[in-house]
Amino acid sequence: MKVSILTIGDEILIGQVIDTNSAWMGQRLNAIGAEVEKTVSVKDTRASIEDGLRVAAEGVDIVLMTGGLGPTKDDITKKVLADYFGTKMYFHEPTWERIQKLFARWGRSTTPAHREQCFMPESATILMNKMGTAPGMWFEHDEKVFVSMPGVPYEMKFLMENEVLPRLQANYQSEAIAHRTILTIGEGESRIAKRIEAFDESLPKNIKIAYLPNLGRVRVRLTGRGGEQADLEALLDKKKEELVQIIPELVYGFEKEQLEEVLGKMLLDKGWTLATAESCTGGHIGHKIISIPGSSAYYTGGVVAYSNTIKNQLLHVSQNTLNEHGAVSEQTVTEMVQGALKTLGSDVALSISGIAGPGGGTPEKPVGTVWMAVGNQDKIITRKLSIGKNRAKNIEYSAVQALNLLRQFLLQE
Amino acid sequence: MKVSILTIGDEILIGQVIDTNSAWMGQRLNAIGAEVEKTVSVKDTRASIEDGLRVAAEGVDIVLMTGGLGPTKDDITKKVLADYFGTKMYFHEPTWERIQKLFARWGRSTTPAHREQCFMPESATILMNKMGTAPGMWFEHDEKVFVSMPGVPYEMKFLMENEVLPRLQANYQSEAIAHRTILTIGEGESRIAKRIEAFDESLPKNIKIAYLPNLGRVRVRLTGRGGEQADLEALLDKKKEELVQIIPELVYGFEKEQLEEVLGKMLLDKGWTLATAESCTGGHIGHKIISIPGSSAYYTGGVVAYSNTIKNQLLHVSQNTLNEHGAVSEQTVTEMVQGALKTLGSDVALSISGIAGPGGGTPEKPVGTVWMAVGNQDKIITRKLSIGKNRAKNIEYSAVQALNLLRQFLLQE
Repeated sequence: MKVSILTIGDEILIGQVIDTNSAWMGQRLNAIGAEVEKTVSVKDTRASIEDGLRVAAEGVDIVLMTGGLGPTKDDITKKVLADYFGTKMYFHEPTWERIQKLFARWGRSTTPAHREQCFMPESATILMNKMGTAPGMWFEHDEKVFVSMPGVPYEMKFLMENEVLPRLQANYQSEAIAHRTILTIGEGESRIAKRIEAFDESLPKNIKIAYLPNLGRVRVRLTGRGGEQADLEALLDKKKEELVQIIPELVYGFEKEQLEEVLGKMLLDKGWTLATAESCTGGHIGHKIISIPGSSAYYTGGVVAYSNTIKNQLLHVSQNTLNEHGAVSEQTVTEMVQGALKTLGSDVALSISGIAGPGGGTPEKPVGTVWMAVGNQDKIITRKLSIGKNRAKNIEYSAVQALNLLRQFLLQE
Repeated sequence: MKVSILTIGDEILIGQVIDTNSAWMGQRLNAIGAEVEKTVSVKDTRASIEDGLRVAAEGVDIVLMTGGLGPTKDDITKKVLADYFGTKMYFHEPTWERIQKLFARWGRSTTPAHREQCFMPESATILMNKMGTAPGMWFEHDEKVFVSMPGVPYEMKFLMENEVLPRLQANYQSEAIAHRTILTIGEGESRIAKRIEAFDESLPKNIKIAYLPNLGRVRVRLTGRGGEQADLEALLDKKKEELVQIIPELVYGFEKEQLEEVLGKMLLDKGWTLATAESCTGGHIGHKIISIPGSSAYYTGGVVAYSNTIKNQLLHVSQNTLNEHGAVSEQTVTEMVQGALKTLGSDVALSISGIAGPGGGTPEKPVGTVWMAVGNQDKIITRKLSIGKNRAKNIEYSAVQALNLLRQFLLQE
């Protein structure tokens, strides 16, 4: 079952709206074994929509369209569709009744544009949209299916889940498909590829590896196709385990887990609380940790020690250390951990201090030099990074690496 | 100048990654007067990339490609491009030298995959990518321009800003176009539209208004087209001034200024230092403030008082206040400001405490209730927000609103 997604609307092309619909549809379609061959976004003019329909329909069985419907703009889209499929428009009484009821419930009155919305192409099966005024439309043409849905995400999702996906599953027998995503941190894409080279070469032809890197983390995805679904799932589970055995220290989770979430579980398992002492990241690590619901169970809080005064007064980094080694040094981040354990009363503390740039570098400590430490009363581990010159990237990357240092500490203890 | 955007990579089509690149590119292209005709996403197989190139090139002058490059996958993409443009691959020594230097600085060694990355199509102009290993490539073919860039957002953005957009602007003469962007905070899109309705109606036909809302902020953009560039610029300057006069208290800046940058300038002007006391945002406000280079001149640091113990011990919020009014209350955020001024030794302090959700709400204080305060030794102002149920959105929105409360305080003092 080959599918394409066609998005209609200027707002996507001028970048006013990010197209999140296509990703959501891609996930759902993938899960039922349908393959999204391409996505296409076009402007909402007649010529662009016609062009988009032609391009989207090439080489696929199903074209799913979103956008171009709604009280102020569905006029063009529906007329183009009616012409494209050689059908006429008629007034669809049930839609008009539904819209009137909807507005009566809201205590509002309809406008002429709403009545206009009820004209539908004759050859379309009308898909009821409980979430809004514009219904979906299902066309069958040239042995292909074309479905038109509104672009409002919750309306599209309602139609996909209640009308489109069930019909596609009923109409198409598709080959088995399964994925396993292994989440890693600590090595780049090419080094991981190198370490699992023999594994990759030993894989049966129906299993493929893909690498999805993102600032210090790499997701390694195994995709299997064909045969019986249950056999395929079992095979992928086996291969996933084999892969993890080759790079065990890099793997922090699977599928959609977040590093922060994994750390939260590790802390909860040990019954330990965490505090942060951040300089160059300014609170970004704390923010990442509290992005997980329920993080108050293990995160007590932090000190953003941006000035040396605060490093000294709140985190008890000695004036001597600051003078002799500087704020960006192994000694300072070590004392920051000790100070945070004391001041913030946690079991474990994490600290970071670096030169985020673009200014502030010296020949000995260039921009991108970052020191970090994690420890408890018994043990402190440290790490130095030498990153680049981009401030935002240095902050983001070093925050993620600090979380990985915490992971390594928790694994050792 | 008609442009299409071609995105290469399975991860987009299976919905593992949301395509944010196209929206960003759409915005930037729009700003230089280029029109994005369509965007196309295809899989990273030879057939799909070839198909994508053909479809993307139809009816446009420029095809901007992202994705399909990187140490483990650029093999296919580059070979398809070389074949498509009828050119051969050669070893590009400068790229190899750059990669080796990069890895030397990181203290890591290269792999054979990195060497493989340095083979480039002969007919391509190589665009230096300071943000990563894979360079960009600029092809001219059949009177069209094709540019290939890595899909990693900050690498793509670097290449667009430093190489692609300047070349496009230099190579294509287009009608005069000018923009003025007025940055506002404090009112929604529809209310701003209502307030400037008469102004909008009075605008000459060659000037259009667009609203670009983003979580509590709305950018109002005036776009003018046609005539002499100098006249157009002068007209837009005049209209911009008129617009600001209608909504002066909402305007925090212009063009690409960031709210955090504007606040930094205001603090520097007054010679005041700032400290933060964050609960529900976990350090996100501090992180926003330090995102601006040079922020150490006015930001001393903060306390992330996630637990009540830290609110009490480090920020001196009284046990009585926490018991009687709770951690999310006007009294608590007021005492947090007082405590932060004392503990962190700043001239001004900002505090925030709220229920980010999804759990933790009560009938009196539902999820999305957030209190914030800003003040100095003489005066403290407070604000309460009632937002929604989405944790990430509550954190982001309330952090931005807290910065606006700081702006209002600085304007008054």
